[in-house]
Amino acid sequence: MPQYKAPLKDIDFLLNDVFDIQKHYQSIPGGEEATPDMVDMILSECAKFCENVLSPLYQSGDEEGCKFDAGKVTTPKGFKDAYEQYVAGGWQSLSHPVEFGGQGLPSSLGIIKSEMIGTANWAWSMYPGLSLGAMNTVLLHANDKLKEIYLTKMTEGTWTGTMCLTEPQCGTDLGQVKTKAELNEDGSYAITGTKIFISAGEHDLAENIVHIVLARLPGAPKGTRGISLFIVPKNKVKADQSVGESNNVICGSIEHKMGIKGSSTAVLNFDGAEGYLIGPENKGLECMFTFMNTARIGISIQGVAASELSYQGSLPYAKERLSMRSLSGTKEPEKVADPLIVHPDVRRMLLTQKAFAEGGRAMLYYSALFADKVASAETEKEREEADETLGMLTPILKAFLTETGYESANLGMQVFGGHGFISEWGMEQIVRDTRISTLYEGTTGIQALDLLGRKIMLSKGANLKFLTKEIFSFCKDYGLISRNPHKKDMLKFITPLFKILAEWQILTFRVMHGASKDRDYVGSASVDYVMYSGYVVMAFLWAKMAQSAYEKIETGEGDVEFLKAKIQTAEFYFDRLLPRAKVHANTMVKTPKSLMQMDEANFSFS
Amino acid sequence: MPQYKAPLKDIDFLLNDVFDIQKHYQSIPGGEEATPDMVDMILSECAKFCENVLSPLYQSGDEEGCKFDAGKVTTPKGFKDAYEQYVAGGWQSLSHPVEFGGQGLPSSLGIIKSEMIGTANWAWSMYPGLSLGAMNTVLLHANDKLKEIYLTKMTEGTWTGTMCLTEPQCGTDLGQVKTKAELNEDGSYAITGTKIFISAGEHDLAENIVHIVLARLPGAPKGTRGISLFIVPKNKVKADQSVGESNNVICGSIEHKMGIKGSSTAVLNFDGAEGYLIGPENKGLECMFTFMNTARIGISIQGVAASELSYQGSLPYAKERLSMRSLSGTKEPEKVADPLIVHPDVRRMLLTQKAFAEGGRAMLYYSALFADKVASAETEKEREEADETLGMLTPILKAFLTETGYESANLGMQVFGGHGFISEWGMEQIVRDTRISTLYEGTTGIQALDLLGRKIMLSKGANLKFLTKEIFSFCKDYGLISRNPHKKDMLKFITPLFKILAEWQILTFRVMHGASKDRDYVGSASVDYVMYSGYVVMAFLWAKMAQSAYEKIETGEGDVEFLKAKIQTAEFYFDRLLPRAKVHANTMVKTPKSLMQMDEANFSFS
Repeated sequence: MPQYKAPLKDIDFLLNDVFDIQKHYQSIPGGEEATPDMVDMILSECAKFCENVLSPLYQSGDEEGCKFDAGKVTTPKGFKDAYEQYVAGGWQSLSHPVEFGGQGLPSSLGIIKSEMIGTANWAWSMYPGLSLGAMNTVLLHANDKLKEIYLTKMTEGTWTGTMCLTEPQCGTDLGQVKTKAELNEDGSYAITGTKIFISAGEHDLAENIVHIVLARLPGAPKGTRGISLFIVPKNKVKADQSVGESNNVICGSIEHKMGIKGSSTAVLNFDGAEGYLIGPENKGLECMFTFMNTARIGISIQGVAASELSYQGSLPYAKERLSMRSLSGTKEPEKVADPLIVHPDVRRMLLTQKAFAEGGRAMLYYSALFADKVASAETEKEREEADETLGMLTPILKAFLTETGYESANLGMQVFGGHGFISEWGMEQIVRDTRISTLYEGTTGIQALDLLGRKIMLSKGANLKFLTKEIFSFCKDYGLISRNPHKKDMLKFITPLFKILAEWQILTFRVMHGASKDRDYVGSASVDYVMYSGYVVMAFLWAKMAQSAYEKIETGEGDVEFLKAKIQTAEFYFDRLLPRAKVHANTMVKTPKSLMQMDEANFSFS
Repeated sequence: MPQYKAPLKDIDFLLNDVFDIQKHYQSIPGGEEATPDMVDMILSECAKFCENVLSPLYQSGDEEGCKFDAGKVTTPKGFKDAYEQYVAGGWQSLSHPVEFGGQGLPSSLGIIKSEMIGTANWAWSMYPGLSLGAMNTVLLHANDKLKEIYLTKMTEGTWTGTMCLTEPQCGTDLGQVKTKAELNEDGSYAITGTKIFISAGEHDLAENIVHIVLARLPGAPKGTRGISLFIVPKNKVKADQSVGESNNVICGSIEHKMGIKGSSTAVLNFDGAEGYLIGPENKGLECMFTFMNTARIGISIQGVAASELSYQGSLPYAKERLSMRSLSGTKEPEKVADPLIVHPDVRRMLLTQKAFAEGGRAMLYYSALFADKVASAETEKEREEADETLGMLTPILKAFLTETGYESANLGMQVFGGHGFISEWGMEQIVRDTRISTLYEGTTGIQALDLLGRKIMLSKGANLKFLTKEIFSFCKDYGLISRNPHKKDMLKFITPLFKILAEWQILTFRVMHGASKDRDYVGSASVDYVMYSGYVVMAFLWAKMAQSAYEKIETGEGDVEFLKAKIQTAEFYFDRLLPRAKVHANTMVKTPKSLMQMDEANFSFS
């Protein structure tokens, strides 16, 4: 059964050696609080909480699941106690504004916290996680009075939040939302309708639940332009901020799901519930986008979590389980057989998980730096650039890291052979829990359309510029005229990186050109494009990590074996994983003909 | 919830148009019984049984699972009744020898039967399925007396069989088997040891269970050369073939698994149980190979079943669920949105499942023809050639069809968006049920080693010849000098097929060469090699199906739309799936360096 161990050494390497986080923190307002000591303390305390409190509930939470009875949801044993410790530790408030009771630390620290918590116990992490999304939405769009009432409680953690978007007839296509909001005499709104798939929609962890609900005002335009955003508490709130009577938000049932069984997924019936408009009328979807970016980055963490936990689970098994002899000669003659890890294909499976876990973490932290800048850039230009780049990176991370995370989870199970299928080992749970990650907060296909159809096409590729420039200048540092001492070592990474950077730009233009002639080209190229982009960005970060490792080895500081392993993992990535991008490149430039030509009626003849 | 509909039209197309099955049946002894009317009747009756009896138990069997209490296993509601109908219908005896009560029909018909049954309800199909493997082993290796006692009952279906190989310390590496067999005074053996992961090892469907057990005689050589094979019935058998007292085979527990929950996976404790040697002493593993080939083909069926059922489940949803508008212009203006199937990426997911289901079925039936010849070839040369070719195809089918089947199952779920994660829809069950297929009967890695390390390397590539010749001559028929009327139509398939055939042969030699210099090369290339081979064989069969479709269209017979869809699916396969082979080609020729260089100690630093 996987027992989570926070990868503090790897996190430290990324923050200090790869991203020079202290320099970054000093460059952003509010970042000065995040001193080295403070960061260390936060990370090590968070690690303890995750390892000692959350990880032990990982498997029992799945076995027990959430229980539903007459509108009430009981979370698995231990979840409530863990949540109380989380609130008492002030973890929910970590990177939220001081003015509403937060600690005001950079949002990148919040992302690292979420990564640790999510890897230790993803199902549990959904409760505070959804709340974070709701908090961001309230922070950005609600008036001061609503913030004072709701945001303070959510920052404290005594109340949690949800996002109520999906309805039975629509998930992706929110233009079909039917939930109604009618003005009451006192200026509040009566919200009526049914929402489904509401994560953390009903539970026993907090005093109150603050629902952020998409609904239509009477006479609102049809489709996405007629949707507004409301705060709807589960229980009404009294003048003194204490929790009052029920607000007619009834949990009708919870879903039976493949995984994340400790996380409740509620059907909520709003029966004239009292709600408060946030943001402008009919602009609810635009307001939601802020939330969606946070949420999508949040879900990309689940991909990294899957790769990490699966690797942590399968590595010890590969070292202990004895099976067959190495084809290149017996390695442990004193034992009845060699351990699994001597076999090349087992190593391929382990290294794939390792490369995706560590490479994914690097992508996540890299993106977190942009998130910090969006939150508190010094100039508007800087903020805009960071926002555009983060907007580009978000669908790439969400699609690529969840797809590779699911692959890792499956490889971790595969290392166990038949035992992987047995629940006791906990490996199949990682697969089941992770499977949702490519579906919710926009499927992989939706991320791909967001990247290509919206962000690339609408900006005519301009959004890509910051990133391609950064990779280009990284490559240039190792170019012909460079005197970089690691030039020779780094060439094995720089040459393919430079090539694929050029190819990425060419492909972007080819795909944009194709799409301008045939709109179905967007949909037919987009998934390949987003996956290809993921391989490129991860290649950049593996090269960057290798560079930092070479430099640190030269200084004579640090753990040489750890740094050597980094470089070897980078080599593995470039040798065995990056070449997959080629297939995506070949496929994305094809016309949609073979996808589109078949008559709908001819898909089946039975 | 997926309701299985037997793809009789597709099966008919394969049997009659693609493989000219009647000509084939007339060429094999015993095949004359399989007249067109007989084949039609068998298929349509089998379809009814699968659709009406097995498919309705698919989801309930998963929800309920098997129950264990004090050594007894209760299968889910309806399983026993379905099994009684199966026995009463004579389905178990279909392609088994007349002399032991079978119907003596070709084994290819048995494979089609297994495909239908397995697609309707894989968990249920494990009970008769395991029995078939045991029956083949008894048929080939037991003496007449044992056959008379056990094979007749198993053919009838009133008793079932199992294969008891795995022990707690070993699955793949059977050389570590510890179970003991000591000679009793009456010539029988006392079998003592623990076997795990025994599918259908204990259940309530049949009067008796016949275990085929791997065990060691006293003083047997260590490792794989000291293992013998025994028949060990669950209950002793009296002289009149009636079931007597317990034989000390105790079911200690059943496993909690990710999927196939209706199939019992037993821990069996043999406590001096009475067993009977079959096959020569210490040659048990060789005897097992016969079983393993059958079993591996059997599991490759699970891959096809997953692609088919998942496609049958996701296609109607894609037609009914309305979401967003087609980017190339609204398709159904009278509705609130267009159906999912208008979107290119949804079509990609559907067509991938379709191509793998139908292409996999073609690979399966193609291989079944060789299985028929192995069972009853007219000459020894023909038998040997068929046996070698089947031996080559078996690991390709097992690895490639289960990996692609799992991919299909995941795509089917993906088409449903968030709903795919909800148990009610039944799509996530296909993923969970199918996940085992790449693990049991030898993982994908083991299939890959069997293909490359054993079959290719030991024969120096000669085993490949029959297949490559066949593909070559198929391509040649469309070559420059051909007057084939479909030459022009077929070129789009023949050109890439011919190229990849040449590449396959070159890669085979490159990989053999690499492996002769570095034994770790075998393990590092093998999974890519087996997957590559799968793409090639499937490409051949898609080209063959397209050819048959073109020819049939020309005759003016048959359903033109059905045939057009076949050709379009072939186009999709060549356009979007076959190109994936390129990555496998690029990766397999790499040295194992990036896999092997990392010190075992450096895989982790936490």
